[in-house]
Formats: sequence, C-alpha cells, structure tokens
Amino acid sequence: MASAIAIVGGTGKEGRGLAARWSRAGRAVVIGSRDPDRARSIAAEVAELSGGSVLGATNAEACAAAEVVVLATPFEGLDATVSALADQLQDRLVVSAVIPLQFADGVISTLTVAEGSAAELAAARLPGSRVAAAFHNVSSKLLLDLDHQLDEDIPVAADDAADRELVLELCRDLGAHGVSVGPLSLARYLEGYTAVLLSVNRLYRTQAGIRFTGLP
Amino acid sequence: MASAIAIVGGTGKEGRGLAARWSRAGRAVVIGSRDPDRARSIAAEVAELSGGSVLGATNAEACAAAEVVVLATPFEGLDATVSALADQLQDRLVVSAVIPLQFADGVISTLTVAEGSAAELAAARLPGSRVAAAFHNVSSKLLLDLDHQLDEDIPVAADDAADRELVLELCRDLGAHGVSVGPLSLARYLEGYTAVLLSVNRLYRTQAGIRFTGLP
Repeated sequence: MASAIAIVGGTGKEGRGLAARWSRAGRAVVIGSRDPDRARSIAAEVAELSGGSVLGATNAEACAAAEVVVLATPFEGLDATVSALADQLQDRLVVSAVIPLQFADGVISTLTVAEGSAAELAAARLPGSRVAAAFHNVSSKLLLDLDHQLDEDIPVAADDAADRELVLELCRDLGAHGVSVGPLSLARYLEGYTAVLLSVNRLYRTQAGIRFTGLP
Repeated sequence: MASAIAIVGGTGKEGRGLAARWSRAGRAVVIGSRDPDRARSIAAEVAELSGGSVLGATNAEACAAAEVVVLATPFEGLDATVSALADQLQDRLVVSAVIPLQFADGVISTLTVAEGSAAELAAARLPGSRVAAAFHNVSSKLLLDLDHQLDEDIPVAADDAADRELVLELCRDLGAHGVSVGPLSLARYLEGYTAVLLSVNRLYRTQAGIRFTGLP
C-alpha cells in the first residue's frame, strides 16, 4: 500500500494543492498545522475537491501518522518547526519544499542559509530522518486545478537514490514528471531557481515552470 | 548591420561553439585569447567549419573591435582578465557566460563569489560597461554540431530590458530561443543551475538543458 503523506504547514496554498492531487491519486494525506482546527477545516475543503482521504491534525500528529512528510512551511518558521518535530520525524523521509526567499524593493532574492539551503538546514536538525528536496516550483494554482495537465518537470534532490525514487513516485501521483537530479547539496540551486521563475512570472504574466531537455 | 561580437577566452570549447554558430549566422566574430597565435589558429578552424567570418586576436584587440563582448573564460582568471580590459570594454555590452564551479570529491558546487555571481563580479570591475549574463548551459558539443536544432531555452539576465533584447538576438543567431528572466542579480541562479545540469548529465549520460513551460 502506498505510504500516508503528511504535509507540515499544509494549510498554505502549496500544501493544499499537493494534498488535493495526492488524495485524488488515492494517497492518505494528513494536513498538519500549528492550528489543528484550521487544519481540519482545510482538510475537509480539500477532500471535497479531490474526493480523496484528507485529514487535519497538529504538525506533530500528522508526522507521527505518515511515512513521508513534506515540509511546506514558510522559511521563517522552518528551523523552530523541524527542531520541535525531530522525534516524530525519526525514520521518516522528509521532503523539503521550503524556499528561503525575500522580496525587497521589488527584487526577489534568496536568503543566506548557513547550511546552504532550507533542505540542508532541515537535514542538520533531523539527524534521524532522511531528507530530500522537491516541489519548490509547482504552482499551487495549477495544482488546485485538478484537470490541468502539469507539463513541467519536478527536480528532486536527495543523497540516496532510493529516496529520490520514492519522491519520483510522489511526482507521478501529482500527475507530474519528476527528475532525479542528484545529491541534497544541489537543493540550494533548486530553491534559488524559484527566484528566476517568479521573475519570469512577473515579466510574462504567467505561471512558468522548467522542463529538462535532452533526457533519455 | 549586426554588431561584431568578441569572445574573450574564445579558444575554449564553449567559445568555439558560440563563434561557429554566430559566424554562420553572418555575424563578424573575433576570438580573443591571451595567446593571439592560438586565437588565429582556432579562428581559422572555426571559419572553415562555419563558412563565416572569424578572426583571432588578443583579448584586448578583440574587445576594441566589437560592440558586444562575451566572457567565456574560466572563473579563476575572470577578475584579472576583466580588470585588465576595463578600458577596451568601455561602452560595450559585456555578456558573462562564466560559471564559478568547483568539482571536489565527485561533488559539483558553486564557488562563493563576494559580488554574488561571476557576472556581478565583472560588473563591479567594469563600471563603464553594461553587463548581462547568458549562455551558461548551452552544450559546446551541440553548438559545434551546426545541424543540431537546439531545443532548450537560454535564460538572459540584465538590468536593462534593451540589453536583454540585444542578447535575445544573439540567442536567435545561435539558432536558440532566449528568455529574458530579469535583472543581473538573478545571474547567480543561472550560474548555479549549471551544477544541477552537470549532475543530470552525469546521472542520465546526456547533455541536458532547460526549457521554460508556461511562456506565452
């Protein structure tokens, strides 16, 4: 049976989009939030949209109930959130979709992260978990439009090839094509490219993604 | 008439590939090198391949002869090279294709650049020039295969929209599709994504590029 998926910070737009697609694909999804009432309310909305199984819970309960946990929090709260969840995340595959971005004077740029990236910050706080990075750039608007055929690739970084394969399955369950790009040290470039895509979105008034050319 | 193009550090594989495509498109190209004899010898080879106009010269002579100058040096020599060429690059559009990468223990990563990126380092040394960033990831092998239809996009960063337009024309003359992504501060992400593409090349034994989805 496919593993249950928890989404930490899952009440945001990105979390809702992921939850809708995964639950539609038959995955059991638990939306986690600091506010479990809000999580349950959003979960009910998403379940109605997707016709699938979506529950709401605290972040800790959500992590305890799932084998795969997606981090979809704002970067600001990431350190405190994952540090508090280290026990519940033990032996889990934790997939960071977190983007350390700032907007200042109309310019988009990445925040400096001592560990190199949001995903590596999570890995540093979670010595008992396996950490991957993915889902940074999938538009929540397009995810929530369940009839939309996603035509972009989802780059996936993780040190272990088997973990990358698990995330590629999650991509397929979104209706998208994942591409295994290599070790977690590449996460900073996946996170950073979000600044390019947001700038392209602004210049062309679109929802841009990327696709890799030249793949076999 | 289309501007002449100089390629600083143009005797490398990337420089040769760009020179071949631009000269075939009817552009006058000057390959610059610290070793002008080597530049002339490579220029003759490229001209024979492309049937176009390719000359070899010192880097300084090449910059003096052109309105658009592409930087295709290794990152290591960039600072010294552009600092020495500041006079000749005055009032030029300078396009940095330089990638600050290192390979250590089989892992590809970017070098830390105090200015943020190789392109911004060049801009800091060239107060009298306009600086753009592009051409980081176009495979030299595919460029030199003149019959190959490039199917990837070339992201172009520059602060001035008119400069980005000039670089988009250069992309067209390569037979490729350029995409204006925004200001020069995005150059670090374009440079950094090269690490992802090189890792993908290694995992899939290919020459990967990227294409933007969702563009109008």
